Amino acid sequence: MNELLHEGERIDQLVSQGVQIIQSPDVFSFSLDAVLLAHFASIPKRGQIVDFCSGNGAVALFMAPRTNAQITGIELQERLANMGKRSILLNHFEEQLTMKQLDIKDILTEIKSDSVDFITCNPPYFKEQPNSKKNPNPYYAIARHEIHLQLDDVFSSASKILKMNGKIAMVHRPDRLMDIIDSMRAHRIAPKRIQFIYPKEEKEANTILIEGIKDGKTDGLKILPPLYVYGSDNTYLPAIKDILHGTA
Amino acid sequence: MNELLHEGERIDQLVSQGVQIIQSPDVFSFSLDAVLLAHFASIPKRGQIVDFCSGNGAVALFMAPRTNAQITGIELQERLANMGKRSILLNHFEEQLTMKQLDIKDILTEIKSDSVDFITCNPPYFKEQPNSKKNPNPYYAIARHEIHLQLDDVFSSASKILKMNGKIAMVHRPDRLMDIIDSMRAHRIAPKRIQFIYPKEEKEANTILIEGIKDGKTDGLKILPPLYVYGSDNTYLPAIKDILHGTA
Repeated sequence: MNELLHEGERIDQLVSQGVQIIQSPDVFSFSLDAVLLAHFASIPKRGQIVDFCSGNGAVALFMAPRTNAQITGIELQERLANMGKRSILLNHFEEQLTMKQLDIKDILTEIKSDSVDFITCNPPYFKEQPNSKKNPNPYYAIARHEIHLQLDDVFSSASKILKMNGKIAMVHRPDRLMDIIDSMRAHRIAPKRIQFIYPKEEKEANTILIEGIKDGKTDGLKILPPLYVYGSDNTYLPAIKDILHGTA
Repeated sequence: MNELLHEGERIDQLVSQGVQIIQSPDVFSFSLDAVLLAHFASIPKRGQIVDFCSGNGAVALFMAPRTNAQITGIELQERLANMGKRSILLNHFEEQLTMKQLDIKDILTEIKSDSVDFITCNPPYFKEQPNSKKNPNPYYAIARHEIHLQLDDVFSSASKILKMNGKIAMVHRPDRLMDIIDSMRAHRIAPKRIQFIYPKEEKEANTILIEGIKDGKTDGLKILPPLYVYGSDNTYLPAIKDILHGTA
């Protein structure tokens, strides 16, 4: 067993990027959403990238081979941030990639204002409501529900650290589109690119990828070609396989 | 030549609805957008329907065979409204369908407030700007540019005449999505259903269909399956042929 692995953990691989990721089903596993976000993002070739809600670092790790930018992952949960730190070592990314355990609301304690070129974020999707059903596993509950972080906290912190014309790309659920747009614009971020992901043909979209620009022009929103995930036989379609296995 | 036809006009047919429409390339011809809007709209089975920016009445005429509701088309341009009136006679729709020449901003002079169940609108798409290139034909310029009618006028008038939980369906361009959403919500209309139309695979969306509900809940937005128009051979795809030719 690899010396970087702790009890109950395993190493998974994103073949397309040749990246290895320490995972543990006990606390968190990255989903297709993380892969889609890294693929959708207009990753700059250099500069500073920050990955909010980084979890075990999946999105940050997937982006690393595609850019010379410095990447910083920010994750609230110590155990997940620690897995991310060990995955950085596993992939020998220590010179490019850093993982910090930090509440995004305190971002200015670690990242300077107006210093970041690009942000990615795979945030908790579900509104925290008094009676909402949550996963009894607190690691999953915090990752999935807006318990410690609201959508508006993400864009508030993002706007503080982004340079003018810096961008943020997010994956979320389409039924939150209005909330996302409102929050972006409340924090001077103009939506510019949207892609909807459909589980299969004839189904409604279940995932949205959205990218906005700080202090950018408010016109010229683009709706990218749609992406379907599963074919009629419930296996990944070629476009998804390409993203996962690297022929894209 | 049919006695209802004037100089330079012709009769076109929407096969799928068995409807005939008086057209004239000199002043206006309905586009695929009108057909898509009528197909997308959650047309109620009865009650009152109003078609804003009705032109030669295409959307109103396409909806008529699919509902027992009373339908009123509203068109600013006298010559287009007149064509619509003659198409109503041509199809023997006079008991169900009425065409009025009226500025939508004066809607309350003809339609009572809080009386309408459903509105459709295929408005001018282009912002009126001092230097914007306009069609030299004034009929087309008025139909395509926000010269006499701004997006906000549409939703302002719609909100006045819609009943509580009444709906409005619109076809527009995706780059105006933010303007559309802002204007809907400024007039108590919650976006509920969106469908993007893509000219072909791998292209960005060039048309949006959006439906909202007056005084409805603001959550639960649905993104319907996408629709592609043309195949790689630049002919209509089967789904579009179905909408046009009636197998759908």
